[in-house]
Amino acid sequence: MDPQAKRNFKLVLEYDGGGYHGWQRQQGFLTIQEVLESRLEIMLGDSVRVRGSGRTDAGVHAKGQTANFYARTRLKPEEILRGLNSLLPPDIAVLDCRQVDHSFHARFSATRKTYEYVILNRAVPSALERRYAWHVRPPLDASAMESCLEPIRGERDFSAFMASGSSVRSTVRRMYRAELHRPDADHVKLVFEANGFLRHMVRNLVGTLVDAGKGKRNREGFAAVLAGGDRRLAGMTAPAHGLYLLEVRYDKEHEQPSAGSDSR
Amino acid sequence: MDPQAKRNFKLVLEYDGGGYHGWQRQQGFLTIQEVLESRLEIMLGDSVRVRGSGRTDAGVHAKGQTANFYARTRLKPEEILRGLNSLLPPDIAVLDCRQVDHSFHARFSATRKTYEYVILNRAVPSALERRYAWHVRPPLDASAMESCLEPIRGERDFSAFMASGSSVRSTVRRMYRAELHRPDADHVKLVFEANGFLRHMVRNLVGTLVDAGKGKRNREGFAAVLAGGDRRLAGMTAPAHGLYLLEVRYDKEHEQPSAGSDSR
Repeated sequence: MDPQAKRNFKLVLEYDGGGYHGWQRQQGFLTIQEVLESRLEIMLGDSVRVRGSGRTDAGVHAKGQTANFYARTRLKPEEILRGLNSLLPPDIAVLDCRQVDHSFHARFSATRKTYEYVILNRAVPSALERRYAWHVRPPLDASAMESCLEPIRGERDFSAFMASGSSVRSTVRRMYRAELHRPDADHVKLVFEANGFLRHMVRNLVGTLVDAGKGKRNREGFAAVLAGGDRRLAGMTAPAHGLYLLEVRYDKEHEQPSAGSDSR
Repeated sequence: MDPQAKRNFKLVLEYDGGGYHGWQRQQGFLTIQEVLESRLEIMLGDSVRVRGSGRTDAGVHAKGQTANFYARTRLKPEEILRGLNSLLPPDIAVLDCRQVDHSFHARFSATRKTYEYVILNRAVPSALERRYAWHVRPPLDASAMESCLEPIRGERDFSAFMASGSSVRSTVRRMYRAELHRPDADHVKLVFEANGFLRHMVRNLVGTLVDAGKGKRNREGFAAVLAGGDRRLAGMTAPAHGLYLLEVRYDKEHEQPSAGSDSR
């Protein structure tokens, strides 16, 4: 191995977003990216730039955020994993570390992302889930919510569910999966898998779906919001602390280490 | 209703034990009991003594702790529930409030309690469960653990699993249920239902069961610890933050409001 050559490492991360101003480095605020970079720098003795698969907003959690970084190091991926976990604060954990091809880019190589949103639906609040689920008191009609999911599956223009003021090249995304689960009487979980998400898209979808669950909108009304493309017609932005980035998927070829790498 | 007559109220409580030095009032430490009493005093304008079904240790969580208190008030139980939840810090929640017979005593009327212990069993730590499960790295043999549960079912002397230095009249308890569940590959949950528990009994049982899961003890060894009654032969005390008081059960007769009560 050329000791001068930088290697590319992919990380899979879990974090409790409650203590951070989101993923992305921001002057004057504590962010996940900054904490990771500072701990990698301590471990590797060199400044490291970590790229995430995308930003998560302040308060949003992750069970499978991904990131990559280039570093000159002789450490094995499993040594980086253990070392980072011993240096990181307990609300950030590295679940996996592996060497990948130089072409791998956590953001641009991503093909699909999955988010989950957790709603606690009961009259009384929860002490244990206060930071991990959105507490909605009125009983939700889960089948009314579920019927609204059909119109968002497939390739759709999601501009009605994009944070106002955002600017992106395209507001069209392909939704591979939009599912509602009721693991027990008190919870509603919504799972969304797409080739990408606009800013606040999941939280705006959830806020609008909860309106449907309260009987304030029906499937036709929901579909009209989607078709209209007007953010002002959609529901409220659901709070950040119910949202989890579950998984980011990549083409297999990008995840293979380059031919010259010798350390996996 | 005689405005001077005190009524007896039963509470069901959920709490995140992480921020408290356990249930019971202690000079100089923040406890659940003290917080509840101070909030009830604000609401009712009178000092209130809250009796719990039993102590929970520092850091132990509850999804169904019960308590009772006597108060002169015209408030309906549902008004007490809502009022308390608005006054309590978010890591304590009242799940239920009802008026009960004067004879109801949260501790002495209890007939059964159920505890759950949650183990996160994987190589890497969890950011989201860091305060809600015991992280055990080596893979546990769940069936070896499960085979140790049979000897503790029924009426047994649990002195081997009692905190050293405790003194109680009897160390015999009747274990109605001792179960192991694997909700997914990363978790082991242990559920214990008994007519009562000795101090640290669940956590000492769990520590010893985890030894069995690591292959350090077998069923015969486990049964010998139980039969020997010697705390020094049992395993470590599992940490408090994996433990949940799930439910306290009572005879139905104690839970009925007294004949003269008019406000349910």
